[in-house]
Amino acid sequence: MSRPPLTVAAAQMGPTQRAEPRSRTLARLIALMEQAAARGAQLVVFPELALTTFFPRWLIEDREELEAYFERAVPGPGTQPLFDRARELGIGFYLGFAELTEDGRRFNTAITVGPDGALLGKYRKVHLPGSFEPRPGQRFQQLEKRYFEPGDLGFPAFRGPQAWGRPVLGMLICNDRRWPEAWRCYGLQGVELMLIGYNSAAYDPNGGDAEDAAIRTFHSTLSVRANAYFNATFAVAVAKAGVEDGAGLIGGSVIVDPNGMILAEARTLEDEVITAQLDFSACLQGRGPGKMFDFALHRRPDQYRRIVEQAGMTPPP
Amino acid sequence: MSRPPLTVAAAQMGPTQRAEPRSRTLARLIALMEQAAARGAQLVVFPELALTTFFPRWLIEDREELEAYFERAVPGPGTQPLFDRARELGIGFYLGFAELTEDGRRFNTAITVGPDGALLGKYRKVHLPGSFEPRPGQRFQQLEKRYFEPGDLGFPAFRGPQAWGRPVLGMLICNDRRWPEAWRCYGLQGVELMLIGYNSAAYDPNGGDAEDAAIRTFHSTLSVRANAYFNATFAVAVAKAGVEDGAGLIGGSVIVDPNGMILAEARTLEDEVITAQLDFSACLQGRGPGKMFDFALHRRPDQYRRIVEQAGMTPPP
Repeated sequence: MSRPPLTVAAAQMGPTQRAEPRSRTLARLIALMEQAAARGAQLVVFPELALTTFFPRWLIEDREELEAYFERAVPGPGTQPLFDRARELGIGFYLGFAELTEDGRRFNTAITVGPDGALLGKYRKVHLPGSFEPRPGQRFQQLEKRYFEPGDLGFPAFRGPQAWGRPVLGMLICNDRRWPEAWRCYGLQGVELMLIGYNSAAYDPNGGDAEDAAIRTFHSTLSVRANAYFNATFAVAVAKAGVEDGAGLIGGSVIVDPNGMILAEARTLEDEVITAQLDFSACLQGRGPGKMFDFALHRRPDQYRRIVEQAGMTPPP
Repeated sequence: MSRPPLTVAAAQMGPTQRAEPRSRTLARLIALMEQAAARGAQLVVFPELALTTFFPRWLIEDREELEAYFERAVPGPGTQPLFDRARELGIGFYLGFAELTEDGRRFNTAITVGPDGALLGKYRKVHLPGSFEPRPGQRFQQLEKRYFEPGDLGFPAFRGPQAWGRPVLGMLICNDRRWPEAWRCYGLQGVELMLIGYNSAAYDPNGGDAEDAAIRTFHSTLSVRANAYFNATFAVAVAKAGVEDGAGLIGGSVIVDPNGMILAEARTLEDEVITAQLDFSACLQGRGPGKMFDFALHRRPDQYRRIVEQAGMTPPP
């Protein structure tokens, strides 16, 4: 039985300044969702930490001030209207947010919600960049390791609903997309569509590093294209972009096919919707029986033990 | 103490027809090596199975006929002049060849030889594509799984000599370059320069698959660029190219930096030398302390167990 195509949208966001009230951010998310639905999208992907500014750029020592950036429940008071509108539109969505658990643990989290409002999957970011201790004398920090615990849910693939053709879905968050291990853990579960939100610095806001937005956008896109190809999966990668509270974020949101080809690409650093129609049978060119990435036929796990037996580099003498 | 730059060459080969005598192939290899040396190269990388046509495209049932494609010793009668000339020139080289061991085992092998003729490293291809059984009724086969055992040496990184700045070197062969596991096993040993030879079909010579040379060359280059970036390493990937015994091979030999940027790229499907000068300090932008790919800081091996615990895909129900 042939599977229906799935129309997906990437809802890139421009910056969300610290001073922006939640009601305004929610209105932007809902407007993006409505645009996506109007263009036929059945699933819309929002960025990492889509509800707030990228607050790990500051050292926040007051617990109450820090926890104001976190959601205690999703849906909750600050997100319910988005869930309501999605259900009215019959559209699913991926949403990144800062999660505060009942027992006080904090994670950088994403969920995927089905067209009927059901929670399909939840993921907690495994590869937290930055540092635990603030870097002295620097205006901008990257304190994800301070504010979040590493994800403890592994890389849990899950299926979309019948109306989407029951594709195997996976979620990653931002820096995860640069780690082939993360993709492969999903690839081994047969992922057909990877959903990714990100906030990636366009340059060093402290001026200490020469990399510019062009190379950082190239690295983001390269990571998504190559890992999609290696795992014969579609991928949607979505930025929060532009100058946010004085620090630049790359855009470059893309929808990529299992050949690593770009189906749609954002052109701005603002709120912008891109869409593509996905035919999941295209995954078979890479992964079908006897093909290049028929993992059962070609992978040699006995040779890969170093990947799980050490974290850091151990060069030869 | 700052390390000297290393000038490397990729010596792409045009096709080597079945009827070409070894003396002719050796003369081509030596000519390429001389060109590389004349352009200042200290290390030249030749393709996979550089001494013969890509014989796994045929079912060869006669043992003697098959073993004629294999080297019993390297250097040996059919390769000694290349070793001699390399030593005269003071140039190191990577050479791919079919290896027949004393006890009759067969591998798809590469070695790297230092500027003084010393064997620096040896690698046996882990990811053998194709099939063991011939596909009935097809003019061209891909029988690497029949003619070779999977490599049994792991992914053994090694150091180059003092004159090269003692870089950590790794070797892969052809299809290996598409497997991020293989690169990561070297990345975890601190590889700074990956050497790769390949013979990759430009299209399905039996006409059953629509992929063309453009997309296959894109996939080859994408694999090298992305994995070089993910592991903050330079890479040299070198084709045997052109129409060989009626079957097309892609070219697209490249030298890539740790940002995934192309430093040099072959333009033909013929014998062609490209060179680049490598500054190994460029690896530190990716892997230095606190950087994006500071593995010890950011990798989470406890989350990657699926990579070694299963070979094939196991989708969710």
